[in-house]
Amino acid sequence: MILTKRKMRTGPMEMNGERKETRKGSINTFVPLIDQMKAQIASKDPWFSLEFFPPKTMEGANDLFQRMKVLAQGQPLFCDVTWHPSNHPGDVEKPTSSMCVASTMLNYLNINTMIHMTCTHQPKMKIKEHLITAKKEGIRNILALRGDFLPGEDWDPKDNNLSYAKDFVKFIREEHDNHFVIAVAGYPVGHPECPSYRKDLRHLKEKVDAGADFVISQLFFDAKTFIDFVDDCRKIGITCPIIPGILPIQSYDSLRHISKLAKLEVPKNIGDTINPIKGNDEAIRKFGIFQAVEMCKVLLNSGKAPGLHFYTLNRDYATNCILKKLGLFAVDIQRPLPWKLSANYARIDEEIRPIFWNMRPQSYICRTSDWDKFPNGRWGNSSLASFGKLTDYYMFYLNQPRKAELLKMWGTHLEKEEDVWKVFQLYITGEENENGIKISMIPWNDDVLSTETSLITNELSYLNSQGVLTINSQPAINGLSSSDPVFGWGYPNGYVYQKAYLEFFVAKEKADILKDILPKYPQVNYHIVSSKGDINDSNCDETQPIAVTWGVFPGQEIIQPTVVDPVAFNIWKQEAFDLWKTNWGNLYQPDSESRKIINYFHEHYLLVNLVDNEFQKPTCLWDIMADMLSEEKRR
Amino acid sequence: MILTKRKMRTGPMEMNGERKETRKGSINTFVPLIDQMKAQIASKDPWFSLEFFPPKTMEGANDLFQRMKVLAQGQPLFCDVTWHPSNHPGDVEKPTSSMCVASTMLNYLNINTMIHMTCTHQPKMKIKEHLITAKKEGIRNILALRGDFLPGEDWDPKDNNLSYAKDFVKFIREEHDNHFVIAVAGYPVGHPECPSYRKDLRHLKEKVDAGADFVISQLFFDAKTFIDFVDDCRKIGITCPIIPGILPIQSYDSLRHISKLAKLEVPKNIGDTINPIKGNDEAIRKFGIFQAVEMCKVLLNSGKAPGLHFYTLNRDYATNCILKKLGLFAVDIQRPLPWKLSANYARIDEEIRPIFWNMRPQSYICRTSDWDKFPNGRWGNSSLASFGKLTDYYMFYLNQPRKAELLKMWGTHLEKEEDVWKVFQLYITGEENENGIKISMIPWNDDVLSTETSLITNELSYLNSQGVLTINSQPAINGLSSSDPVFGWGYPNGYVYQKAYLEFFVAKEKADILKDILPKYPQVNYHIVSSKGDINDSNCDETQPIAVTWGVFPGQEIIQPTVVDPVAFNIWKQEAFDLWKTNWGNLYQPDSESRKIINYFHEHYLLVNLVDNEFQKPTCLWDIMADMLSEEKRR
Repeated sequence: MILTKRKMRTGPMEMNGERKETRKGSINTFVPLIDQMKAQIASKDPWFSLEFFPPKTMEGANDLFQRMKVLAQGQPLFCDVTWHPSNHPGDVEKPTSSMCVASTMLNYLNINTMIHMTCTHQPKMKIKEHLITAKKEGIRNILALRGDFLPGEDWDPKDNNLSYAKDFVKFIREEHDNHFVIAVAGYPVGHPECPSYRKDLRHLKEKVDAGADFVISQLFFDAKTFIDFVDDCRKIGITCPIIPGILPIQSYDSLRHISKLAKLEVPKNIGDTINPIKGNDEAIRKFGIFQAVEMCKVLLNSGKAPGLHFYTLNRDYATNCILKKLGLFAVDIQRPLPWKLSANYARIDEEIRPIFWNMRPQSYICRTSDWDKFPNGRWGNSSLASFGKLTDYYMFYLNQPRKAELLKMWGTHLEKEEDVWKVFQLYITGEENENGIKISMIPWNDDVLSTETSLITNELSYLNSQGVLTINSQPAINGLSSSDPVFGWGYPNGYVYQKAYLEFFVAKEKADILKDILPKYPQVNYHIVSSKGDINDSNCDETQPIAVTWGVFPGQEIIQPTVVDPVAFNIWKQEAFDLWKTNWGNLYQPDSESRKIINYFHEHYLLVNLVDNEFQKPTCLWDIMADMLSEEKRR
Repeated sequence: MILTKRKMRTGPMEMNGERKETRKGSINTFVPLIDQMKAQIASKDPWFSLEFFPPKTMEGANDLFQRMKVLAQGQPLFCDVTWHPSNHPGDVEKPTSSMCVASTMLNYLNINTMIHMTCTHQPKMKIKEHLITAKKEGIRNILALRGDFLPGEDWDPKDNNLSYAKDFVKFIREEHDNHFVIAVAGYPVGHPECPSYRKDLRHLKEKVDAGADFVISQLFFDAKTFIDFVDDCRKIGITCPIIPGILPIQSYDSLRHISKLAKLEVPKNIGDTINPIKGNDEAIRKFGIFQAVEMCKVLLNSGKAPGLHFYTLNRDYATNCILKKLGLFAVDIQRPLPWKLSANYARIDEEIRPIFWNMRPQSYICRTSDWDKFPNGRWGNSSLASFGKLTDYYMFYLNQPRKAELLKMWGTHLEKEEDVWKVFQLYITGEENENGIKISMIPWNDDVLSTETSLITNELSYLNSQGVLTINSQPAINGLSSSDPVFGWGYPNGYVYQKAYLEFFVAKEKADILKDILPKYPQVNYHIVSSKGDINDSNCDETQPIAVTWGVFPGQEIIQPTVVDPVAFNIWKQEAFDLWKTNWGNLYQPDSESRKIINYFHEHYLLVNLVDNEFQKPTCLWDIMADMLSEEKRR
């Protein structure tokens, strides 16, 4: 997020926005969107933002979030989600509602999010509810719209005294003061329903005067249209940022459809180019990219467009190309922390997480979403913090491939323990399984393996082939540069450190051998637990967390973003064991052999974690594993 | 303190006292004295404690605290101060009162402290007041006594319904529940006023039943006396710890005086040894040490004495010898933090301090004594923390040599700036000045220089000879063992780190050159300020503290005990400039040349601090200084 990118580049002291809510001493800082814009305008640093619409189905949502992830890598300043009045837009429980999509973007994809809202066709109470829901979900930005009027409708805007967007802006300010950043729409060629361009400009002025922070323009096809529009706005005293809305032409049909909706004429030169190739989607897309890039260059060079807002139509390809050609798609941004920061302002202080959820960050966010304070500086004793239930984790549609795909990855029929070992091993190595499928995930990993893990692939692959089923690990790091491409994070010119960590499922017999070996390695802290809880061995203090990732930076306090916390491990342990059944075993028929095998792992394997406190020397964790495996063979 | 020694050895999880007030995640832990005793009894680890009486004069107090410091190095479990009813014992504002001496021991010498209190000869209100004062000062241990009755007195114990120590114990428990650990006195040969030994044992049982936590015995001269006494106590159901009170015989007169007061007969074998040598103090002291060591060995070996309580008579020599011969005087205790931990339970969470007061810890403790929370984990933004005024620093009699001595050290007549430079330089090198005097302190340093500083003596000496008047510094340390004899602190098997730090007064002309040079060294954070505040240059964030000392330990979060905090620096700066006048200039006549010279430093020198954030490489701070000095010569 730009939030952080900003912070890393300039530090919060250089931001002088009026509504700043910074908390000093945290690597992350909440700066309202409008203040971020002002800071970027001041430093002549153009940004981009992206617009999406809520998908109609769960599959559509799944697909959309994959595309968002790709685009989010380019560090948009924010993304927005349109408001579909016909689809329960404010119902956050409905996975395809505007509110749910916006909340997911914000909370699980860590994108600064704006939601559209309309004020007509609904009672005031409903609007109040929507605003409260948005606030509760952590959404801080609203594009305030009137809403469309369709011919023959029986809605009278006077029914709720919110006849125009300007009333809605005023209403939001009255209800929530400056909590929300409010954007309004501007019409470079006038609103389709407005009799004159001049009159429409005055309406825009009224919306801004009512309290809007910035303007996003309706789409247009010619840079001059927007530049003239900005000049006209400035002349009548509209001083806030005005952002051009860019539609990359992606197909003949969509262009026709959209320009009809927006009551816009497609300029002759564009029409002349497109009409001859209207059957050739590929050619039209290429032209669309070319046209958008050229127009955006003019806009950015004119000094009238401080950033660009893209109407993506939920597609990533064209926008991605345009951004890269414009040099706006961020590359190699310094990570502020070793895990992805939340874009939700409520988590702005969050600076420490237990390592256990490193591979399941969405589950962690979900299970801690009720916390009203997030740890920074010190994790401390978390025995009083309450983690939400695993079943609260309703965001399962993110990333979750269909059952058939999972079976192809993990095996349609499991016959023996070793079949499961093989799945773990192939996940680590990235090799294809017997179905010719790459195992891109296992239940304990939301995502593909990190580059960091790939550095210890050989060690992990061997362990998994021997039934040491690794689900989380990190190597020891003794003061690498904070800009190291693999391990770096935090402020520039600092140093980062890690203690080696290894977490795995292993058969009880192996764990017993391990327990005999561990006393020889006093520098190692361990936990060994069973699903039932009858085995719970550790040499750790019951509540003292261990920092396993930390960084030292110029002009800063020490930052320790990852800990092994014994209390949180007891929560994680339950999740880790449950995943055998919920996310794997359940794929098979209740009485099937496959189901029994997975149940066997749940019942008879133990979960182990090891921390090697000696980070200045080569880690002993591989030696311990080798000792365990050779002792097993000897016995 | 044993507090910490305990913690470092065993960790708080192994203490199972009933009234434990631990806070997990802090390197320091408050454990009530009685629970510390129980833990040491459980691990068969004998301790010692020391008794002092309040001195009659300020000089006496000064002298006493020097002796206490010597003995405190041996890590007594606690020290106690007797109650002198005739000398306003509860008036903490009076430097020679019992309360003030106890509070100073606790708060400024960091010794776990017990205060004696008597319950007779005063109204109940007065006693209540004393208890509240003790609580406010942080004293958590009280030896509850009845108080002596002198023949012909008009006090009737019934006047306040506190006729006996048992009533007093009950009263303390009623008023303050378990806040205080309460000790009572036991009489191995019976209380002098009590008709029978048996009856006196029953009185002791009543005192314990009333709520006392442990017993300290009156002095005795034969181990068997105490051993029998303990056996008799156990028989009637007294189960709490009973600690023998040991009087090292230090002179013929004091022995006679004390045994008369205690109505004790000196055993014949001791009398026979002493009487022939009664004119030879040295011989008697040697015998006293011999006799005490032998008796203590028997006591400790008997299993009846878990620790030893010494009646020091405010002398350190004999007790010191006895403790060392018994192997009870602690040596080379691992420092839990790089600065001395407070023994006051109110500061138990304190884990971070600004570096500026490193050399004036008593001033820091005094100026922060009103804080109700102390920073740990993160220092954060201290702009809301209020530091007490420098004038609150009433403990000036600690360490403060007389004016004549100071003049001999710092110069009776100052004639030029360089005379002052020379004082700083000789303080650093430890050489004698022209009066043949070693400069053991300067106004900015409470104490002799640390071993750490001695490693950079040559660099500092040269700088001071050139008018760079250093008052605080530390070298960079890149991950030395936490048991390093010079730099080590914290838990065993960890690593400690430091960023190089240098703080000094320097003439404005040099500071101007420095400002030109510093941009070449972007890894350095700096502050340059004047006494008036008209110069205040820095490249630091206004509120962000910089960790300059931190440690990484097995099974722990990262600990960062020392920070350079820009907010605290503004407070320190005032103190540092004021010290020129209050502690140095004031030694001279108002219109004297010497006074004018000191004033000149106050007005025209600037205070500078430098942090080199690059701790993995040799520090650039010496290069910066060399650049500054050579550029000055060039100009």
